[in-house]
Amino acid sequence: MTGEKAAVNFCSRCAAPVVWRIPPGDNRPRHVCEACGTIHYQNPKIVAGCVLEHQGKVLLCRRAIEPRHGRWTLPAGFMENGETMEEAAVRETFEEANARVEIDALFSCLDIPRINQVYVMFRGRLAGGSFSPGAESLDTRLFDEAGVPWEEIAFPAITRTLELWFRDRRNGAFGTHTDVIHRRAAP
Amino acid sequence: MTGEKAAVNFCSRCAAPVVWRIPPGDNRPRHVCEACGTIHYQNPKIVAGCVLEHQGKVLLCRRAIEPRHGRWTLPAGFMENGETMEEAAVRETFEEANARVEIDALFSCLDIPRINQVYVMFRGRLAGGSFSPGAESLDTRLFDEAGVPWEEIAFPAITRTLELWFRDRRNGAFGTHTDVIHRRAAP
Repeated sequence: MTGEKAAVNFCSRCAAPVVWRIPPGDNRPRHVCEACGTIHYQNPKIVAGCVLEHQGKVLLCRRAIEPRHGRWTLPAGFMENGETMEEAAVRETFEEANARVEIDALFSCLDIPRINQVYVMFRGRLAGGSFSPGAESLDTRLFDEAGVPWEEIAFPAITRTLELWFRDRRNGAFGTHTDVIHRRAAP
Repeated sequence: MTGEKAAVNFCSRCAAPVVWRIPPGDNRPRHVCEACGTIHYQNPKIVAGCVLEHQGKVLLCRRAIEPRHGRWTLPAGFMENGETMEEAAVRETFEEANARVEIDALFSCLDIPRINQVYVMFRGRLAGGSFSPGAESLDTRLFDEAGVPWEEIAFPAITRTLELWFRDRRNGAFGTHTDVIHRRAAP
C-alpha cells in the first residue's frame, strides 16, 4: 500500500506556503501557491487487485501490515504511474501472494468517496497453482464461500467484491459490477 | 480539466528539498523528504465522462480550452476527491454541455499508461433533450456515426470509446470494455 496522502502546507514547486482557496475559473478550493501560481490538485487513487479462482476456491491474503493487520483481503494495492490497471493487479498479486495470474476480465469498479479511492478488481485464475505469503502477508489461503472468514475481512470493498463474485458464480455467469461503498471497516 | 501535475522539488509538508530515491522497503524511486521522512507518492488519475445518446446520435463537445482547443470530445474530466466516478461523469457533462444525464451503465475503462490516466466512461441518455456549450466548450452537437468528425477528435481514448460504442450499437448489445491506449493524439 503505497499512496498515503501527504500534508500540503508548502508548494512542492517553489517551497512557499500554500493557501486553501478557490482558484480563478474553478469552483472548489485547492491548495494554491500565491508565489509561483501552481495549483496543487488532489484526486482519487485507484486500488487494483484480483479475485483469483483455483479449484473452486478464492485466494485471500492475511495482512502483515497496517492498516488492518491480521485481517484477510484480496491481493490489491495502489496502481502506480506508468502501469495499466491490469498490470497493477497482477503485480500486487505477485507481491502479496507470490501468485501468477491469468486475468479473465474486469470484475468490479467500486467507489469509496469517503477515502477518495476506487477499487478496480479483475477476476482470473491462479496460473501454475502455487502461492505463498509475500512480504506484506502473514498467510495466503484458498477459501470456498462457506469458509471465507467474513467477520475478519480487512475492508468493506473486499467484502463487497467477494459477495458479488460468489453470487455471480452461483448464478453461473460473471458480470462487471459497479457500486459505491459507504460503510467503514468494522473495528 | 483540473489535474495537471505540479513539479515536486520541495516537501509539501515541511518545505525541505526532496530527493528522488527508492525508500526502504519499496522497489521504485519516489520523491522523498529526508528532513521529515514524508514520501510523496504520485499515482494515476481518473478521467470520468459520458457517451450520451439522444435520438440515435451521440453528444460531442468542441473544446474551448487547451490542450486540443477546437477539437471534439465526449464530455469528461478529472474525477475530484469526495465524488464517485458516476458523479464525476454527470458533473463534467453538465459543466461542458449543460446536459442532464440518465446513466445506464459503465461502458469503458481505458488505461493510458504513457500519461498516467485511466478513462472511465459511462453510457446514458440525454435527460430532457436540451444541451448547450458550457464555459469549456465552443460548441455542442449530436452526431450519428457517419457524421462524427473522426479526424478532429481531441484524444485517442475518445476515438476508441466512440468506436466501441458505435460497434456495440450496430451489434445491438452494449458491453463493458477495457483497453490500453498507446498512441498519441495526432498533431
